[in-house]
Amino acid sequence: MTDVPTIPLVPGNTLITPTPEEGRALALMLARHSVHAMQKQLEVLTNGRAQYSHDPYGLIAASHVVATEFATIAAANNYWKTPSEL
Amino acid sequence: MTDVPTIPLVPGNTLITPTPEEGRALALMLARHSVHAMQKQLEVLTNGRAQYSHDPYGLIAASHVVATEFATIAAANNYWKTPSEL
Amino acid sequence: MTDVPTIPLVPGNTLITPTPEEGRALALMLARHSVHAMQKQLEVLTNGRAQYSHDPYGLIAASHVVATEFATIAAANNYWKTPSEL
Amino acid sequence: MTDVPTIPLVPGNTLITPTPEEGRALALMLARHSVHAMQKQLEVLTNGRAQYSHDPYGLIAASHVVATEFATIAAANNYWKTPSEL
Amino acid sequence: MTDVPTIPLVPGNTLITPTPEEGRALALMLARHSVHAMQKQLEVLTNGRAQYSHDPYGLIAASHVVATEFATIAAANNYWKTPSEL
Amino acid sequence: MTDVPTIPLVPGNTLITPTPEEGRALALMLARHSVHAMQKQLEVLTNGRAQYSHDPYGLIAASHVVATEFATIAAANNYWKTPSEL
Repeated sequence: MTDVPTIPLVPGNTLITPTPEEGRALALMLARHSVHAMQKQLEVLTNGRAQYSHDPYGLIAASHVVATEFATIAAANNYWKTPSEL
Repeated sequence: MTDVPTIPLVPGNTLITPTPEEGRALALMLARHSVHAMQKQLEVLTNGRAQYSHDPYGLIAASHVVATEFATIAAANNYWKTPSEL
Repeated sequence: MTDVPTIPLVPGNTLITPTPEEGRALALMLARHSVHAMQKQLEVLTNGRAQYSHDPYGLIAASHVVATEFATIAAANNYWKTPSEL
Repeated sequence: MTDVPTIPLVPGNTLITPTPEEGRALALMLARHSVHAMQKQLEVLTNGRAQYSHDPYGLIAASHVVATEFATIAAANNYWKTPSEL
Repeated sequence: MTDVPTIPLVPGNTLITPTPEEGRALALMLARHSVHAMQKQLEVLTNGRAQYSHDPYGLIAASHVVATEFATIAAANNYWKTPSEL
Repeated sequence: MTDVPTIPLVPGNTLITPTPEEGRALALMLARHSVHAMQKQLEVLTNGRAQYSHDPYGLIAASHVVATEFATIAAANNYWKTPSEL
């Protein structure tokens, strides 16, 4: 079995991103890195990905985690509101 | 297998929408685009959609993701409150 | 197959309601209209409703979506607090 | 089949309660009344209750809905903080 | 069948606790007391506990309820921030 | 059967952490310590971990709990915003 490299839980150690798109990408990464913190074996992760990513219920459950992470990141960035949108 | 085109995670790269209706539409898109970011193969997505959209539990789970995304977008837009509603 | 009529995602295009009761009714509608946005076929919706509404787990999952939508609507209406309750 | 009487979605049409205990009771009622709004037949509700209330997974899922409703009610009541706790 | 004694939904009828540790303990109690409010029979509760507490999916689902309750309690206590942390 | 040592629910009895990375680690610990509070037997925990950590649905459900805990911790730390990011 091969272990995935130990990666930071929070890439860049900040929740602040320039744009919503980068905030969304961070949300996906946070969710993925949580899983890697709980399961380090690459073969298990690869098999698991093949399974859930071909199952709509797995994709829906995973997208719910991303939505929860994004809510936190969006609040952290004050929803990327421009001065005129405040 | 055909890959769906790479699409932005956050269409328009903003959470700010003129109305709740457009905010709701954005919530649906965010949820869908999360799934596309995790699964790019059109055939897998099409089969998955046929499956969950004909199953009440799949539709309920997906609507829960939309509700979570909408909570974020609504807060971002200060609930589209008009000056008199503030 | 019959398609349900295209209905707005957010009836009245506002989250502001006069009372909590109407806010709760809006939460139920938002949840339902999400499902209709994902599945337009009346026969599928009718069968699905017969299924989940006769299954406690389906009803619990659906009520969880309503609770999530209501949290957003209640915050939008500042919890319908009267001036003396602020 | 007997229909449960039509009951308000939000008993008392307010989220404001004198104490956390009453706020918690309201959360339980909101969750229950959502279910009654989706399923009016007493026999179906009674069978469903017998089922989920004898299954730990059903009780956990239902308690998750109560927790979500309570979060909204607690925020509505500013967490029942006394002046000294503000 | 033996009924568990009727216990308050919110022990102490307050969400305010001196420390995060006590706030976390309260979150566990709120979740448990919700279940007791929905199922009073001790034998059913004991069997159910034996079941979910020996199943990782049951423990994960239950810990999700605790996390949701804790979010409310932490907000109620302004995250137990000391004056210097405000 | 061996019991895990009784450990605090909230390590350090504070939600305040210097960085997002440490906040994320705390979220993982809070989720894990909830489970230990509900199930003390090491053998049961070890078997359960082997099960859910080799199942993508278990890992997704667990990561959803971490996301919920992290939302609380991030809010507690005002999203670790530096003065210039406020």
